[in-house]
Amino acid sequence: MRPVDLIRKKRDGGEHTAGEITSLVEAFTRGDMPDYQMSAWLMAVTWRGLSSAETAALTEAMMRSGRVLDLGGLPGVKVDKHSTGGVGDKTSLILAPIVAAGGLIVPMISGRGLGHTGGTLDKLESIPGFNVNLSPDEFLRVLGEAGCALAGQTAELVPADKKMYALRDVTGTVESAPLICASIMSKKLAEGIDALVLDVKTGSGAFMKRQEDAEHLAQIMVDTGLRMGKKMAALITDMDQPLGRAVGHSLEVAECLEILGGQRHPLSEDLRFLSIELAAWMFHLGGRAGGLESGRKLARDMIAQGRALAKFRQVCRLQGAADLSRLPAAKLTAPFPAAADGFIARLQCEQIGLASLVLGGGRNKQDDVIDHAAGLEFHKKTGDAVKAGESIATVHYNDPARLPEAMRILREACHSAAKPPGDERVLVKKIIEGGSNAFSSS
Amino acid sequence: MRPVDLIRKKRDGGEHTAGEITSLVEAFTRGDMPDYQMSAWLMAVTWRGLSSAETAALTEAMMRSGRVLDLGGLPGVKVDKHSTGGVGDKTSLILAPIVAAGGLIVPMISGRGLGHTGGTLDKLESIPGFNVNLSPDEFLRVLGEAGCALAGQTAELVPADKKMYALRDVTGTVESAPLICASIMSKKLAEGIDALVLDVKTGSGAFMKRQEDAEHLAQIMVDTGLRMGKKMAALITDMDQPLGRAVGHSLEVAECLEILGGQRHPLSEDLRFLSIELAAWMFHLGGRAGGLESGRKLARDMIAQGRALAKFRQVCRLQGAADLSRLPAAKLTAPFPAAADGFIARLQCEQIGLASLVLGGGRNKQDDVIDHAAGLEFHKKTGDAVKAGESIATVHYNDPARLPEAMRILREACHSAAKPPGDERVLVKKIIEGGSNAFSSS
Repeated sequence: MRPVDLIRKKRDGGEHTAGEITSLVEAFTRGDMPDYQMSAWLMAVTWRGLSSAETAALTEAMMRSGRVLDLGGLPGVKVDKHSTGGVGDKTSLILAPIVAAGGLIVPMISGRGLGHTGGTLDKLESIPGFNVNLSPDEFLRVLGEAGCALAGQTAELVPADKKMYALRDVTGTVESAPLICASIMSKKLAEGIDALVLDVKTGSGAFMKRQEDAEHLAQIMVDTGLRMGKKMAALITDMDQPLGRAVGHSLEVAECLEILGGQRHPLSEDLRFLSIELAAWMFHLGGRAGGLESGRKLARDMIAQGRALAKFRQVCRLQGAADLSRLPAAKLTAPFPAAADGFIARLQCEQIGLASLVLGGGRNKQDDVIDHAAGLEFHKKTGDAVKAGESIATVHYNDPARLPEAMRILREACHSAAKPPGDERVLVKKIIEGGSNAFSSS
Repeated sequence: MRPVDLIRKKRDGGEHTAGEITSLVEAFTRGDMPDYQMSAWLMAVTWRGLSSAETAALTEAMMRSGRVLDLGGLPGVKVDKHSTGGVGDKTSLILAPIVAAGGLIVPMISGRGLGHTGGTLDKLESIPGFNVNLSPDEFLRVLGEAGCALAGQTAELVPADKKMYALRDVTGTVESAPLICASIMSKKLAEGIDALVLDVKTGSGAFMKRQEDAEHLAQIMVDTGLRMGKKMAALITDMDQPLGRAVGHSLEVAECLEILGGQRHPLSEDLRFLSIELAAWMFHLGGRAGGLESGRKLARDMIAQGRALAKFRQVCRLQGAADLSRLPAAKLTAPFPAAADGFIARLQCEQIGLASLVLGGGRNKQDDVIDHAAGLEFHKKTGDAVKAGESIATVHYNDPARLPEAMRILREACHSAAKPPGDERVLVKKIIEGGSNAFSSS
């Protein structure tokens, strides 16, 4: 079938065979199917959707468009986590060393910041010397030595996704759930993993504002992973205020080091809690824990015994960062004060991410240089009492010209009320599992 | 708004402003909006549709993407006809001289063959010397002198359509009714006409197989024309067997010359009838007839008085064709015989068009050279009794290698039965008018 016939088939609501989808992805990756045909097909998919079988076929075809890592030479179960992205979401930096210290292999390939959310790679690069640009062979070497590696996508892995995502971004086809699923899952499965835990965010700071959309996407991703023979679980989690108390690259790394080192801070408890939950699921799916409770205990033990922090230091050293004590700090700080006595009713998460971006922590264009030290450190979060003039957050910045705009956005983001908000915040809203998931416990 | 925001708006079912549509069409025509964004928008339009106001705005923006003919210097009402295309549909060559002889101005810009259907330009080019490639100024000169001109689209008129149609053809977005409407209407209205009669075909040989689809398209086109201040009428007509008895370029011109000359042939009566109906509507909308019946009479008079044929000869002469007696004839002919005694139950129209194409009368690629003499002349049509071995049609051809495939297709196209088909064929199935249409009768 010619590409135009496949576009027409999907336009008319037909279901593609796996072979048809493979031929589309291959032709597009080779450059034989022009962008204007792929964008028409992508819009037809946004319209008609993809079946579970089609989504899995697309995921597999995209995965096979480039190199798939062969981790067969490494002993142990390979497990990873993927988050759909949020503000202050830094769990990857905490989880990877905990889970590797606990005996699983964590081949973690991450992305850059997207829109108002920070990216794991940008956070890691705030550590002086840390190299995220590993070749597949370097990646395998670090992984073999430390049990985890933290790196960016290379051109060798899933080239179809890079090309397709660039097109989706400018043709209004980003929001399609099966296309999001195939993009995420193809990259994760190219890592050669056995199991994957998904952290699907919902709320004002998430891409999926509505919980039902997050659940729908999570279900599609879990189904796709199961069809491809992977152990899968998805946690639907709250992103209605920043996770933890730091937003901004080096500030977030510092917060991770605190948690990995066993320090507790009331405003970082949500981050610690979610990190342990996700680690517990990874241990559970990876067969290191008979159940979630023993998974949680193993995660807490890795922190308490200092093994998680040691693992993080080892990975940093292997990836070029010898000294974690010299994270970049901003030259200037300013308090963001409360306007009146009362309670914090709401911290609009997307705005807070935007304020950090405006301070220099994000990119407007792909080649913008990031200010790794810029960001926000919160002293109050939703539900906390504040007095007029009291600092809700400390603003860290190097460029004074950027401060007024950031402050203006923060004032819009922070809603106060005379009474405390009544509803308790639930961090993990739902869990979507795919049948009998766990490896036999070792 | 950026193009991607307009794509997203249509994707989400929003309605564009006229300004938004104009900016899309202008950016695309200039080359500032890439093909891959336009194709995504076209698919979103195929999905969500266009409102009546959006369709008119698209038509107008496309029309204004190039030159719009100014016929203000020519006295009289300007009227044209457009057919959605069929097999053996040669009414343009009959209508234009009848209506021009009757006192209206007919600036007829036509197209090439598309798919299984023949194109008016290809038919005209079978007349030795006939030049369809007139510049707008040459077109106006012929029009001024003869009252009608028969030519092809130039690059100066509606460049947006040429570019957009090429993209639609390869992205599965040809079938959208509002896009079909804007493509047709922008080209017709760029002719500078006051009134337009549409011949919307339905049946096995038409692009719209189902009558309801033909009616829907007709209604959209009538609405669009009315919004743009034109007099409009649409006839929904049968294309379930070829119109007239000739299929193929020079054979069709010969059939037109017969009708213009007042000769009658039983198998050409449907063509004659439809030509007079369409001419009557053109006279009616153009104010030359108080009603349809007087329009029909005027058309018949133009034939009977020899004025229609004289007008056709005049146009041919002005466009370079001095001698109509030397139409190309094929070197070879063969009878297509009936397989058995019985009645012709069905002539599958799309197949018949295809047979003519296979004989050399059509193009597979844009630059294929047409054999103007190749084609079919029918001796029997639906409902006629045949005896085994009797010739249903004469096949005209120059290339013997092409005959077997054409014969094979004809055998598939021709269904016979022991009894005559019961239902009477109705040629004009429905008329869609737009309110009080007629100019005051002169």
